[in-house]
Amino acid sequence: MSVSEKNINWENLSSLESFKKLQSLKGAVNIAQELSSPEAQKRVKDFSVKMGAGLVYNYAAKQVDEKVLKVLAELSDEAQLTQKFEALYNGEVVNTGEKRLVLHHLTRGQLGDKVVADGTDKREFYKTEQKKIADFAEKVHSGKLTNEKGETFTTVVQIGIGGSDLGPRAMYLALENWAKANNSFKMEAKFISNVDPDDASAVLNSTDISRSIFILVSKSGTTLETLTNEAFVKDALKKAGLNPARHMIAVTSETSPLAHNPDYLEAFYMDDYIGGRYSSTSAVGGAVLSLAFGANVFADFLEGAAEEDRLATNPKIQENPALLDALIGIYERNVQEYPSTAVLPYSQALSRFPAHLQQLDMESNGKSVNRFGQKIDYVTGPVIFGEPGTNGQHSFYQLLHQGTNIVPLQFIAFKNNQTKVDVTIEGSTSQQKLDANVTAQIMAFACGKTDADPNKAFAGGRPSSLIYGSELNPKTLGALLAHYENKVMFQGFVWNINSFDQEGVQLGKKLAKKVLAKETDGALKAYAQLLDL
Amino acid sequence: MSVSEKNINWENLSSLESFKKLQSLKGAVNIAQELSSPEAQKRVKDFSVKMGAGLVYNYAAKQVDEKVLKVLAELSDEAQLTQKFEALYNGEVVNTGEKRLVLHHLTRGQLGDKVVADGTDKREFYKTEQKKIADFAEKVHSGKLTNEKGETFTTVVQIGIGGSDLGPRAMYLALENWAKANNSFKMEAKFISNVDPDDASAVLNSTDISRSIFILVSKSGTTLETLTNEAFVKDALKKAGLNPARHMIAVTSETSPLAHNPDYLEAFYMDDYIGGRYSSTSAVGGAVLSLAFGANVFADFLEGAAEEDRLATNPKIQENPALLDALIGIYERNVQEYPSTAVLPYSQALSRFPAHLQQLDMESNGKSVNRFGQKIDYVTGPVIFGEPGTNGQHSFYQLLHQGTNIVPLQFIAFKNNQTKVDVTIEGSTSQQKLDANVTAQIMAFACGKTDADPNKAFAGGRPSSLIYGSELNPKTLGALLAHYENKVMFQGFVWNINSFDQEGVQLGKKLAKKVLAKETDGALKAYAQLLDL
Repeated sequence: MSVSEKNINWENLSSLESFKKLQSLKGAVNIAQELSSPEAQKRVKDFSVKMGAGLVYNYAAKQVDEKVLKVLAELSDEAQLTQKFEALYNGEVVNTGEKRLVLHHLTRGQLGDKVVADGTDKREFYKTEQKKIADFAEKVHSGKLTNEKGETFTTVVQIGIGGSDLGPRAMYLALENWAKANNSFKMEAKFISNVDPDDASAVLNSTDISRSIFILVSKSGTTLETLTNEAFVKDALKKAGLNPARHMIAVTSETSPLAHNPDYLEAFYMDDYIGGRYSSTSAVGGAVLSLAFGANVFADFLEGAAEEDRLATNPKIQENPALLDALIGIYERNVQEYPSTAVLPYSQALSRFPAHLQQLDMESNGKSVNRFGQKIDYVTGPVIFGEPGTNGQHSFYQLLHQGTNIVPLQFIAFKNNQTKVDVTIEGSTSQQKLDANVTAQIMAFACGKTDADPNKAFAGGRPSSLIYGSELNPKTLGALLAHYENKVMFQGFVWNINSFDQEGVQLGKKLAKKVLAKETDGALKAYAQLLDL
Repeated sequence: MSVSEKNINWENLSSLESFKKLQSLKGAVNIAQELSSPEAQKRVKDFSVKMGAGLVYNYAAKQVDEKVLKVLAELSDEAQLTQKFEALYNGEVVNTGEKRLVLHHLTRGQLGDKVVADGTDKREFYKTEQKKIADFAEKVHSGKLTNEKGETFTTVVQIGIGGSDLGPRAMYLALENWAKANNSFKMEAKFISNVDPDDASAVLNSTDISRSIFILVSKSGTTLETLTNEAFVKDALKKAGLNPARHMIAVTSETSPLAHNPDYLEAFYMDDYIGGRYSSTSAVGGAVLSLAFGANVFADFLEGAAEEDRLATNPKIQENPALLDALIGIYERNVQEYPSTAVLPYSQALSRFPAHLQQLDMESNGKSVNRFGQKIDYVTGPVIFGEPGTNGQHSFYQLLHQGTNIVPLQFIAFKNNQTKVDVTIEGSTSQQKLDANVTAQIMAFACGKTDADPNKAFAGGRPSSLIYGSELNPKTLGALLAHYENKVMFQGFVWNINSFDQEGVQLGKKLAKKVLAKETDGALKAYAQLLDL
């Protein structure tokens, strides 16, 4: 049955009956009460959904109860959220603005029908590229492919920006210590992204470029920052008497100028159906992660994501963690009217995961028109920010606890650390201290505390969720990533916006070109003069 | 004349006449119009204030005009903002909750009266510690002080969290490339902060600990994370056959257990009058920065901050950049009702500067009661977040340009890069591209663009400011830091809150201790069980 036969309706949130019902439930749940009631332990155990790879999404400290959940389920049905997902993975043109399919799920599994585009079975296309990357990585690791002097390559440097940088960088950092502790560490990875020349300089100055492979990542092959940094790197290679064509590979689309180009040792392909911010499981993440940790690690990462994707197809919201997380987020954003959300991983390895989610969420859902280009009359994506705990506790948590606005929180924690090295101080390990803090914070935010001194009182009523698992490893990381990708997708469906384009980045690019061409007047000219341009 | 004789009134913002006037000016200025008018070039030039160390604060793209500025000046007078600053630097107990003076300005200069506390001239006390640090750093750099084998120390590792980590780390990263390019680089600095054991492990695994000096930073000497990480480090030193007492120094208060303690090679002192988030210019930043770059660099950094502090004493808002920035922020937060603010440095060296400002601002002003402990009826500190440009352009700027909420922006840019290395591609250097982008973004946000396709239209009307200068170096960095410290202070005065305590961090600490002691019941027990605690 084709998608169009399924009669999918793309309706604005404000026109849904279930949304009106949801609005009547504003402030319906007092979590301080819920979590201090005699049934609180049962609530903590019951308000849980299994995620992929053994992770669990717990929402006991969210402002929901059976009544709110029932209306969220109605909203999910009325907005046809899982049908829309089905349409997407079966090859519907869901990215309507750019008239493109949205196929990042196919990089990690076949969820539905075979999808053929540009004359190719796309699942086969992505698998072919994974195989090519695995073979290339094996040649590098085994020393079959070496530098000019016959030395092995020790370092891989990714040159890319935005989705070609944030996701792969966050994933690399998430697995670096795990890989070192599990004999899976093959090559150090570094990243050059900013057009600020000091970014490339600093990386090159601290790297033995003679033993480095540089990955140029640009889907179109035209990204200004990335091409500029490529020139920077090529310059350095030439000055060191090295041949760039023996040190550079490309990840790009087959139609870009970087494809089939003798300037690169090898090229791995993605296509227009993978948005930059959804590209960590494509060749964009695949090349650097396979070189750094081996292709098996990357395959496990994909398997974790695939498990999570399968769960996301379930129309029952209490069995579908991404869907449930998305719907609770809608309640928080559009009914409770909270303007921002903090992502707080209690894991130093996830230090850049919030920065990746910031792009994933804000670039996908920071939109003011619906998928038909009509202005909408409700708010969409919140501001996303975050830092690892416990560091954040000693920083911005003050405002989260006692500030004048409520910020919903997303905690992430693991029972075990990655390196297996730990110390016991005052009867507990550091990992236990870390985890004790996350549980304590959830309760402190939810229940607060009265105090005779109002300066020491905590209002409570500040909602949070907790994703937890036994360890951050390739599989759980894949599941975690896919969870958020799917959550953002479902929220985009609810808001009836196109989560897969980013027209908001265009105007700045155009004006920057004008400044560089000195085609300015008025205020733009005056600003350019301030900076001697 | 003593402070009390000056009749300072600590009044709530909502009780000020000028604030009522300001509220009547909601939406008064259309910046799209202002910046496309024939006088726009004049506006860009005129709406500028000189900062310290040659920096400039430009507010031409803020939603202000002469009318709004006049009322902001009235607000400044009515709230006695510069008088309150004067009281603070002359030694008034401005941190009323903790009954403490607030003296971080004295670490970089004497703005007013001599301040005597605990029987000491505090300016002399801070200078003495700076001298002690300079002498110690000189001994390390010259090789007079070496490790057990007589080898020089090459690396300095700071162990601290929150204010003992974020500020010093951001400052180190801000100056690392500058120091390398200017023959001022002495030792590499690393940082251990999180109680996550993998944080310490990862740093220790990548460091030659036999040639490292570890700085333990804790004012009270009781910070759980820091003491745990100290034990972690001592363990590693002992396992390597090294004597911790020959590798560790302390930065602490004179009354802490770390002071006058033979476990440390040397101790440098701060006191209760320096809040953690204001401690970058005290021994907390001084030890690590002087070891990394030499005491002269740290002295220049202090001089830049001192210049900025002197400007902040000026009651004329259009000659006082921190005061003006603070007041415009109040207009944006309390009149325009924008809930968050983004800090966007176009300088990769400032990669962690937004994280530092996040603490500085959110921990200082994320409060719901006034300085007398009374509940206030207006919003205080916004959510602060940010990443360097141009990276952010390829990430969350989509939401900033086309999202449903307006987020005020603070751009920072420099005419020159730090390393002096650059490449010319398509007729412009990378630094020029970087700066062309910042000017383009300001105009894109302010003026927007109409388009027949609403998905490609930009509403504009999104305000921003720009701090710019010729180069990021020790002096300009000091001025930049002090600017934000003073801005946050002035905003705290306007909101009539105590910006110098952080009671909001206490409850979580207490509950975490209960979890570790297994003194839990109810929901807290259930949460602890989820994580096997």
